[in-house]
Amino acid sequence: MRDVYILGVGMTKFGKFPEMTITDIARRAFLNAVKDSGINPKAIEVAFIGHVRQPGQGAMVGQRIMRDAGITGIPILNVENICSSGSSAVWCAFSFISSGQFDLAAVIGVEQLSVLGKGIIPPRQEDLEGLQGMVLPSYFAMVARRHMYEYGTTIEQLAKVSIKNHKNGCLNPYAQFQKEITFEEISHSPMVADPLTVLHCCPTGDGAAAAIICSKDVVMKYNVKPIRIAASVLKSGSYDGGWRDLTTNDQTIRTAREAYEISGIGPEDLDLIELHDCFSIAEIFHYENLGLCKKGEGGRLMDEGKTELNGKIPVNPSGGLLAKGHPLGATGVAQMVEVVWQLRGEAGKRQIPDARVGLTHCVGGVVDGLDLGACTVHILKRE
Amino acid sequence: MRDVYILGVGMTKFGKFPEMTITDIARRAFLNAVKDSGINPKAIEVAFIGHVRQPGQGAMVGQRIMRDAGITGIPILNVENICSSGSSAVWCAFSFISSGQFDLAAVIGVEQLSVLGKGIIPPRQEDLEGLQGMVLPSYFAMVARRHMYEYGTTIEQLAKVSIKNHKNGCLNPYAQFQKEITFEEISHSPMVADPLTVLHCCPTGDGAAAAIICSKDVVMKYNVKPIRIAASVLKSGSYDGGWRDLTTNDQTIRTAREAYEISGIGPEDLDLIELHDCFSIAEIFHYENLGLCKKGEGGRLMDEGKTELNGKIPVNPSGGLLAKGHPLGATGVAQMVEVVWQLRGEAGKRQIPDARVGLTHCVGGVVDGLDLGACTVHILKRE
Repeated sequence: MRDVYILGVGMTKFGKFPEMTITDIARRAFLNAVKDSGINPKAIEVAFIGHVRQPGQGAMVGQRIMRDAGITGIPILNVENICSSGSSAVWCAFSFISSGQFDLAAVIGVEQLSVLGKGIIPPRQEDLEGLQGMVLPSYFAMVARRHMYEYGTTIEQLAKVSIKNHKNGCLNPYAQFQKEITFEEISHSPMVADPLTVLHCCPTGDGAAAAIICSKDVVMKYNVKPIRIAASVLKSGSYDGGWRDLTTNDQTIRTAREAYEISGIGPEDLDLIELHDCFSIAEIFHYENLGLCKKGEGGRLMDEGKTELNGKIPVNPSGGLLAKGHPLGATGVAQMVEVVWQLRGEAGKRQIPDARVGLTHCVGGVVDGLDLGACTVHILKRE
Repeated sequence: MRDVYILGVGMTKFGKFPEMTITDIARRAFLNAVKDSGINPKAIEVAFIGHVRQPGQGAMVGQRIMRDAGITGIPILNVENICSSGSSAVWCAFSFISSGQFDLAAVIGVEQLSVLGKGIIPPRQEDLEGLQGMVLPSYFAMVARRHMYEYGTTIEQLAKVSIKNHKNGCLNPYAQFQKEITFEEISHSPMVADPLTVLHCCPTGDGAAAAIICSKDVVMKYNVKPIRIAASVLKSGSYDGGWRDLTTNDQTIRTAREAYEISGIGPEDLDLIELHDCFSIAEIFHYENLGLCKKGEGGRLMDEGKTELNGKIPVNPSGGLLAKGHPLGATGVAQMVEVVWQLRGEAGKRQIPDARVGLTHCVGGVVDGLDLGACTVHILKRE
């Protein structure tokens, strides 16, 4: 298998853009990535587009994006893995380039949720748990309560995650929220699912992110700082991971373990992480699932400030899902955009000095009350 | 790149099953393929699921199908390329096995359209051509009219396609329609888009098809007749192909040409073809696009009976989309199921004697009035 590189990246600001179409949003991110990479877009050999596709947005979103950008004829594949749709598209591109089948691929993640109104992802008819209230906020509220019970994690520690990520978001012009929040504001914001108020939850929104991914031969032709994808792993959840222990995310543990093995890079080697903080408790327990600390110590890691922008291992410098936003299909690619900018030293006010290795983690979906979605972990390295 | 084989296949009858869920339908096809292949389903390393996913059916259809079948933890990817969704999933599996990344993959194509009611695929807000009536039946009606004008193709020749495919469907217990139709019935059935009456059009419906795809090492362990995938090509349409000449399907021509080159197998070597006869005229012009005859001679080929079940090159022995049915995501995989059965000599009353080489062709979508969808061509060979 061949080495795989990211040649260029781009994204849109995340926010609410109901007056645009999903293809308009995606095209902007794609053209930013094309410009950043310096390629002639006609050189793109294959494209993978990750999106969950909302009602009314039609099929073949990827073909329409590419057509609007003047690219036709090549293989184009739309992929959907709920919140991991974009990062699953990266996994595809990685695999096809790694295997030598293609040399230059475009990846786009996009979503437009603002067109949907309230109750945007209603449970399906046969999702008995969901229909009785076991939707994602209540699931993560239970995770939070159990983590508090088992490990003494406090609501203050959870709130610190939101405070940190919103603080980081202020430094990111692409973030949906660019305003610091206080513990009082978090506590007094509307309750969603006890103990999670709305400021413990990521927002819904719109946005897109894109990456141009290529072989070593291609990257060497361009005057860029090569960013290598040292590992690209996709896994699904298992029966073991869901109910047996709510405070553990089994699919993250297994996916990260394989990414560490493949790359020879461990959690101690990482200079930054973009992880899936869909709720404040998610960031806490993913510290543990990703091996940044022992099980139960996620809250303490937050207390110690180690994951702050100036800490030992900054987590979600972009603002994460909580502040940068979470347009489902866009998120996984946007995480890679942030890491690429950080590894290149182009992250502006939120730059982590001399960052060389970063990890992105995207995990999607509780299926019928079971943790059976899709999880991706990517490790990026400046060469 | 390594050789890739189909170890086992399975499908459901196509029809209307609104009382079932999409995952129920898919699981049946998948378990049939597992049984046919003789594998332990736990040996499956990766799964690709093609579907267009209708409103209310939720995300992560593939993860839910696999979960219901007891398979979790592995990489699972949902892919969407409109009518080519299932065959695009095969393309993925082929690529991942060909490259050596996996040895054993499951592919499922599934769709459930019966839950949607009438006007099932409404044009999007920004699809200006579609909103003015340029939906698929009217597009193909224009193709028919132009083909008649340019090449003297007759309505009788078009009707013969429907008559042939419905006749074949009578021999296929999995077909949605198993009843012969006459020229009079076709002529007097309700007009959809002049000159196409409803019996010139494929039905909507539900169904699933599945295949177990593997490396040579794996196939050799099983007591099966090895069916090799000699070519797997996915392409998208281009600006050149749509309006410039309505009577040509540019993406089919380019995709088939590459499949012929890769496999070293030409149209003259084929023992059967399953092609995308979404409308009777589609079969006629795809004879030409696939190189079975010269441009404009598709009608004559039909007249000569060469594509009948007992003809020189039988086309759509399964009944095709017109009679077997067209549950979007299922179709591309179901075509491969038919070809595998034919190459193994297991096609019952519709068996083509000593069939050794077959081609499947699936093409999806007119985007905003332009022929910009996704096209796949696969060539299968009995070894």
